[in-house]
Amino acid sequence: MLLQTTDDTTLGTALADLLDEVQRRFSAELLSDTDCVNGLVAHVERFRGKMLRPTLVIVSAMAAAQSEDLGELRDPVLTAAAVCEMVHMATLVHDDVLDDAQVRRRGATINQLRGNEAAVMLGDYLISHAYHLCSSFGRPDISRAVAHATNTVCEGELLQLSNRHNLELSEATYFEIIRRKTAALCGLCCELPVRLRHPGAEVNGDQSLAQALFAYGEKLGIAFQIVDDILDLAGDQQTVGKSVARDLAKGKLTLPVIRHLEQAKPDEQRAIAGLITQAADPQLSEQDASAIAKAVAQRVTDSGAMDYARQRARELVGQAVEEVLSTVGPCSARDLMELMAAAVIDRRF
Amino acid sequence: MLLQTTDDTTLGTALADLLDEVQRRFSAELLSDTDCVNGLVAHVERFRGKMLRPTLVIVSAMAAAQSEDLGELRDPVLTAAAVCEMVHMATLVHDDVLDDAQVRRRGATINQLRGNEAAVMLGDYLISHAYHLCSSFGRPDISRAVAHATNTVCEGELLQLSNRHNLELSEATYFEIIRRKTAALCGLCCELPVRLRHPGAEVNGDQSLAQALFAYGEKLGIAFQIVDDILDLAGDQQTVGKSVARDLAKGKLTLPVIRHLEQAKPDEQRAIAGLITQAADPQLSEQDASAIAKAVAQRVTDSGAMDYARQRARELVGQAVEEVLSTVGPCSARDLMELMAAAVIDRRF
Repeated sequence: MLLQTTDDTTLGTALADLLDEVQRRFSAELLSDTDCVNGLVAHVERFRGKMLRPTLVIVSAMAAAQSEDLGELRDPVLTAAAVCEMVHMATLVHDDVLDDAQVRRRGATINQLRGNEAAVMLGDYLISHAYHLCSSFGRPDISRAVAHATNTVCEGELLQLSNRHNLELSEATYFEIIRRKTAALCGLCCELPVRLRHPGAEVNGDQSLAQALFAYGEKLGIAFQIVDDILDLAGDQQTVGKSVARDLAKGKLTLPVIRHLEQAKPDEQRAIAGLITQAADPQLSEQDASAIAKAVAQRVTDSGAMDYARQRARELVGQAVEEVLSTVGPCSARDLMELMAAAVIDRRF
Repeated sequence: MLLQTTDDTTLGTALADLLDEVQRRFSAELLSDTDCVNGLVAHVERFRGKMLRPTLVIVSAMAAAQSEDLGELRDPVLTAAAVCEMVHMATLVHDDVLDDAQVRRRGATINQLRGNEAAVMLGDYLISHAYHLCSSFGRPDISRAVAHATNTVCEGELLQLSNRHNLELSEATYFEIIRRKTAALCGLCCELPVRLRHPGAEVNGDQSLAQALFAYGEKLGIAFQIVDDILDLAGDQQTVGKSVARDLAKGKLTLPVIRHLEQAKPDEQRAIAGLITQAADPQLSEQDASAIAKAVAQRVTDSGAMDYARQRARELVGQAVEEVLSTVGPCSARDLMELMAAAVIDRRF
């Protein structure tokens, strides 16, 4: 999808080649001497779709280098990209357990196919190998940065869990949750290449670049999650390619609903609260859950709260682009970073 | 428990002080700025019991140094001990999810208390912080060794999962499972202190010591798991302090049962197979599951297969001690390593 956003075929070809190499490193790292493990990994590899995170790593590296030729950084950048994708895959596998999700990238989730137990352990296997691969850099500061990001991701997930069924969830807490659970890793993806340019733990002289690229990734990540949450509420499984209406089913309030509840009159608040409670009934069929989500989506759209959520995502994307424009010189990688930001808003899946 | 195994009060006091410091580092690393995370961590800290893994790290360090004074290695050894305990805690939390276990150290498991979702994420938080703390060494080779061990642990768990309800599970595969899922981490605990003595990735000159200490930990770990499996089958929850009869409930065949099935006549094989199938019925009450486990345990005991399993554990403990006696000079740490090995066999919980 991302490749289609650029007309620059040189960059497009270079990026496609590099992403192929990321996939090879990903698979090589996960190869086990036990067949049962390889079978599960083969299934998880089918979930690889947008490759957003490896693309962020590679394009940020090109932007920082002001060149599509990464030179001697090619090797560590590609490994970092594989590490970030592996961390992301681990969170997807465990997320699907948490959400009781059955469909991912138009295929069965691991928990649906092989049970929650295998999904928990496979997620652990992926995260363990992510750290294993990361330690191959000989750069403890990189391992520390990756582990710091995963600490934050877990805190975001736990904060979200502790706010399930909380009808008074504030916008501020919602943003705190998604900043941690989604955006922290995207920020890391964009910042890591700058760290890799400096052999020590300090990015002397490149601090503002590191900060701007981190901010670009973080804001993009927040916007991405807002759109993801909109798609879960208002999209259909056919188009989105994964289980939808899971947020309401799991008692997770997302931005459009939070905004709607904040702005609604007491009668409407009670009506929405009733629908939300119904949607979270674990006995509900998938069809009924989807129908309730549609009803909520309609009211949220009518009140303008859906537009509000889209507008917040649009503003964040604008700020993300601003971060890059103000610190990175003109180059085709920078152009692609702008296009990627726009694609986050326009995506339908 | 372990402290009671030594009459050497100097060593006992030194060890208790060092384990206190490990606990402080453990807690400091896990401190979050979100209250919900700290609440879960506080609960998990109650699971800390035997502290077997940190003790292995410290005592191996003393044995390698031939001194109870660890000198400048004190700091990295204590951090390594906290890392190993954190990895172990993560596996306990996820194991309890896999086993649907309700009791651990005489308290409720996280999954029982807060649901599987919180338990999955808390386990992830623990493992993430283990790697985070591990990267503080400035030693990528140590991070790599820890991640290599956790890769192996996950493979062991996945291998075990893929053999659930396999009535033809061989002894060889059983040993392969427990070597990976339990013993790999114990081996690491004993080997890490030798690695820490050498600033580079190579343990020049200390290779045979590193190998012997790894072998001690690995054999001890295998014996420990055999005894754990015996306690699950034949122990009662009151004494063991955690859910028992979980192995049969989850379709996991362990050494006494495997041996019994191998040696039994066809009639008895069919009878045991019937009991095993009954025990794995998810609708079964805990009481009925326990009664079936008792019936299986009785038959396994009568056939001598329980003694066989204990004897295998005893042999491994003997081999573990032999590894240490042949490479480590006489010192009180070595004496304690012998006592710890004996305690693995004698334990009732």
